[in-house]
Amino acid sequence: MKPLSPADQLFLWLEKRQQPMHVGGLQLFSFPDDAPDDYVAQLADQLRQQTTVTAPFNQRLTSRFGQPYWTEDTQLDLEHHVRFEALPTPGRIRELLAFVSAEHSHLMDRERPLWEFHLIEGLPDRRFAIYTKVHHALVDGVSAMRMMKRMLADSPTERELPPIWSLPPRANRQPQPRGSVIDSLSHLLGQSGRQLGTLPAVARELLRTVQRARRNPEYDSLFRAPRCILNQKVTGSRRFAAQSYSLARIRAVGEAFDATVNDVVMAMCGHALRAYLRSQNALPEQSLIAMVPVSLRRDDSAEGNQVGMILASLGTDLADSGERLRHIHQEVGEAKARYASLSAEEIVNVTALTLAPAGFHLLTGLAPTWQTFNVVISNVPGPRQPGYWNGARLEGMYPVSIAMDRMALNMTLTSYCDQVEFGLTGCRRTLPSLQRLLDHLDEGLEELEAALR
Amino acid sequence: MKPLSPADQLFLWLEKRQQPMHVGGLQLFSFPDDAPDDYVAQLADQLRQQTTVTAPFNQRLTSRFGQPYWTEDTQLDLEHHVRFEALPTPGRIRELLAFVSAEHSHLMDRERPLWEFHLIEGLPDRRFAIYTKVHHALVDGVSAMRMMKRMLADSPTERELPPIWSLPPRANRQPQPRGSVIDSLSHLLGQSGRQLGTLPAVARELLRTVQRARRNPEYDSLFRAPRCILNQKVTGSRRFAAQSYSLARIRAVGEAFDATVNDVVMAMCGHALRAYLRSQNALPEQSLIAMVPVSLRRDDSAEGNQVGMILASLGTDLADSGERLRHIHQEVGEAKARYASLSAEEIVNVTALTLAPAGFHLLTGLAPTWQTFNVVISNVPGPRQPGYWNGARLEGMYPVSIAMDRMALNMTLTSYCDQVEFGLTGCRRTLPSLQRLLDHLDEGLEELEAALR
Repeated sequence: MKPLSPADQLFLWLEKRQQPMHVGGLQLFSFPDDAPDDYVAQLADQLRQQTTVTAPFNQRLTSRFGQPYWTEDTQLDLEHHVRFEALPTPGRIRELLAFVSAEHSHLMDRERPLWEFHLIEGLPDRRFAIYTKVHHALVDGVSAMRMMKRMLADSPTERELPPIWSLPPRANRQPQPRGSVIDSLSHLLGQSGRQLGTLPAVARELLRTVQRARRNPEYDSLFRAPRCILNQKVTGSRRFAAQSYSLARIRAVGEAFDATVNDVVMAMCGHALRAYLRSQNALPEQSLIAMVPVSLRRDDSAEGNQVGMILASLGTDLADSGERLRHIHQEVGEAKARYASLSAEEIVNVTALTLAPAGFHLLTGLAPTWQTFNVVISNVPGPRQPGYWNGARLEGMYPVSIAMDRMALNMTLTSYCDQVEFGLTGCRRTLPSLQRLLDHLDEGLEELEAALR
Repeated sequence: MKPLSPADQLFLWLEKRQQPMHVGGLQLFSFPDDAPDDYVAQLADQLRQQTTVTAPFNQRLTSRFGQPYWTEDTQLDLEHHVRFEALPTPGRIRELLAFVSAEHSHLMDRERPLWEFHLIEGLPDRRFAIYTKVHHALVDGVSAMRMMKRMLADSPTERELPPIWSLPPRANRQPQPRGSVIDSLSHLLGQSGRQLGTLPAVARELLRTVQRARRNPEYDSLFRAPRCILNQKVTGSRRFAAQSYSLARIRAVGEAFDATVNDVVMAMCGHALRAYLRSQNALPEQSLIAMVPVSLRRDDSAEGNQVGMILASLGTDLADSGERLRHIHQEVGEAKARYASLSAEEIVNVTALTLAPAGFHLLTGLAPTWQTFNVVISNVPGPRQPGYWNGARLEGMYPVSIAMDRMALNMTLTSYCDQVEFGLTGCRRTLPSLQRLLDHLDEGLEELEAALR
C-alpha cells in the first residue's frame, strides 16, 4: 500500500466526465518476415498467457481515511486490461485514428488498475497496431516512454520479450522526472498546497500573484495571448490525428533558414493553426502563443532534469511561411536567453505565472480574462534506433495526450529513427474537423520547402 | 426545447461513473442472398449518407435555470453516433459479446444526443451485428423496441428503409408506457416528489413506510429475500452474455409440467443462479427472490398498459429441477392471484414496498438491512414474424440492460419468431465470470427435459 503523491492526486481530482486524465500511445508495427497471415491472432493468444502482472500495472486505487493509496488488485482480470480488437474495412490509418479517438474518449474503471492495452488487427500490408492507455496518476509520460523503450529490442531475432505489464520491476527505481505542462502545474500546486483540501487557497494565491504581475512591466510579455476557440471548455469526446514526417526534410529546411528542427516544427504548427482557424472563421488578429516545455539542463547533474516552459509567438498573424519561421526562431531564441539569465527562483516565478490562468481555471472552474498561452506544443524524445517487439518492427509511434478545459488542443511530438511523429489530441466538438490540421501541417512544410527554391 | 420529465431526470441523476444509465440492444443479421462479400462496408457507406436525424436522435441535454431540457443539436456529428466497427479473429459470438461488454461499460458524451449505433463486421458465415445504445433518459425500453420494429420490414425485398435516426416522427405520438423496474421506480418517485430536490424527503418517507410495513403481517412476505452477492455495489465495467433458446423446447417442458413458458424460463434462471452462486461459494440458504414485471392489463383500455411487479421465489434452495419448476409455477400463480384481488391503490402500495429497499439505497447511498428481491427478470415481447433490414434477415436480438448498485445482475428476455432470447447484463467485478450463467441456463433446460423422460 503506497500513498499517492499530491501531483498524482491532482490528476484524479481534475478528472471529470468530459475531461479524462489518461495519456496514451499508438504504435504501428510490421509483421516479422516469417510471420503467418494470422500472426496478430497468435500474438493475442500468447499475450493472454502473460498473466504475471507487475507494478504499477497491478495497482488499483483504494482510499483510507480520505487518503488515496495504490494497493495490489487481488482480483485482477487480465481480459479487462488486455484487449484484442480489429479495424473495420478498409483498415486504413483513417479507421485506426477513428478507433483511437473513440477509445481515448472513454474513462477507465477506477476500481481496477488504470491501464488498458489494445492489440489491433485489420490493417493492410501485414501491419498491426498497439494503443496503450494509462492514467496520468499511474504513470507519467516520461516513465511511459521508458517502459515502452524497455519493451522493445534492438533486433528482430530477440523474441521472448515480456509485454509491458509483465516487465520485472527495476531494482533501483529513481523518482521519475515529470515532463508535461500538467506535471509542472501539479508539481507547482503540490508545492504550495500539499493537501488537496487547500486548493481554493491555492487558486486565491494564484489570482493575487497574477494581479500583481500584470501591473509589473517585467512580466508584461506573459499576458499577450489572444482569446481563441482553442481555449474554450472541452466536451467528453476526443479526436486523435497523427502523422509522420521525414526528419531529413525538416532538417533541410532548418539548415537553409539557420533554424533548429524544433523551430521548423513550430512553424509547421503555426501554419496549420492559422489555416485551420481561418477555415473556422476563428483566427485571432494577434498571433497565437504556444507554451513549449523545454529542458533547463545546464549541466549533467541530477538536478538538471528540471523542465521549464517558454512562451513563443507562433506567427499566426503572418501570411508568409518563411517570415513565420524566422519570427519563431527569434522568439524561441529570446525566450531561451531570458531563461538562461534567470535565477532558479525567477524561473519558478515565471513558470507559476505562465501556468496561472490554466491553473486558476482548473481550480475554480472560472475562466480568467487573461491568458498566457493558447496551445501546448511538447516534444518528447523517442528512440533513435529501430525497435522490434518479438520480431515485429516498430514503424511509427504517436503520443496521445490530454485535452482539458481551456486547453482544447494538445500537440505532442516525438521522434523515432529518421521520423518526426506528430500526435494531435483535441476535443472534437470544440474543434470541429481538427484532423484537417494534418493537411495543414503538410502544407506548412511544403511552403517552407517552396520558399527555398 | 422540451423539459425533461421527472422520471427522465432521475435517470440522469442516478447515473454515475460506475453506473451508466443507458440501455442497449444487440441484433444479429444474415446477409441478403444477393449480397457481395463486402456487404457490410457498403452498408456502412450507405448509412453515412443518411444525414437526416429526427427526434429524439437530434436532441441533446441543455440546462436553463437548473431545469434540464432537450434541445436540438445544431452541431450534430453523425460520425460520432454512427460507428462502423469490426470483431477480431475468429469473430465468434464470444468476441461479439466481449465487444458489447466493453462498449456497454462506457458512459456517453452528455453534450451530444445520447445514442450510438454500432455496425459490426467480422462475423463468419455472412453475418453481421448491430449494437444500439441509448440513454434511458432519451428512450425507454418499450419505445426502443417499437422503434426497432419500425426499422424492420416483413420481407427481404423492401430495401429503402431509413435507419432508426432518420425515421419520420410519428404523427400522433402517445405518451410511452414504461416497462422496466427502474421505470416504475422513477414513476413512483416522480409521483411522490415531482422535484428532484425533494429526493431525500422521498427516501425518509420510503423508510417510514417500510418500517410500518415490516410490523404488519400482511406485508410480511415482501421482506424475505436473503442477502446475496447479487445485491452488492457495482463497479464501472460490465459483462454482457446472451443466448437464444428454442421456444418449442421451452413450450414442450411447460406443457408437460402444466406450467407457462414464463414459469419454465424462471426455472432455468433459478437453476442457473443456483449453480453459478454455488461455484462462487455464495449460495444463500434461503431461496433467491426474483422481481418480475408483469402486465396488469385486465381489459383492453388504455389504462391497461400499467405494469406491476410480482415477487417470486426462484427455488434456488431446491436441488431438483422439476421440483423447482413446480414451486415457481405455484409462487407465480399465487402472486398473480394476490394482485388480481388488490385494488388499484393497494397495487401501488405493494409496488412501492417492493421497490422501497432499492429506491432507498439509490436515493441515500445507504444499504438497507432489508431486501425484497435479489434479481430482476423481465420479459419484453418482441416481434413474432421474421424481420428484415434492407434485405438482411434478423437472426436474433438480445436486450442489453442496466446493472446498478444492489442490482448487479439484470436478466432480460425477449422473444423473436420461434426463439426466446436471453440477455444478461451485470457488473463483471461483483459477479466474476458471469458468462457461465449461459452454460447453467443450458443445463437448467436439459435437466427439465431429462425429468420428462
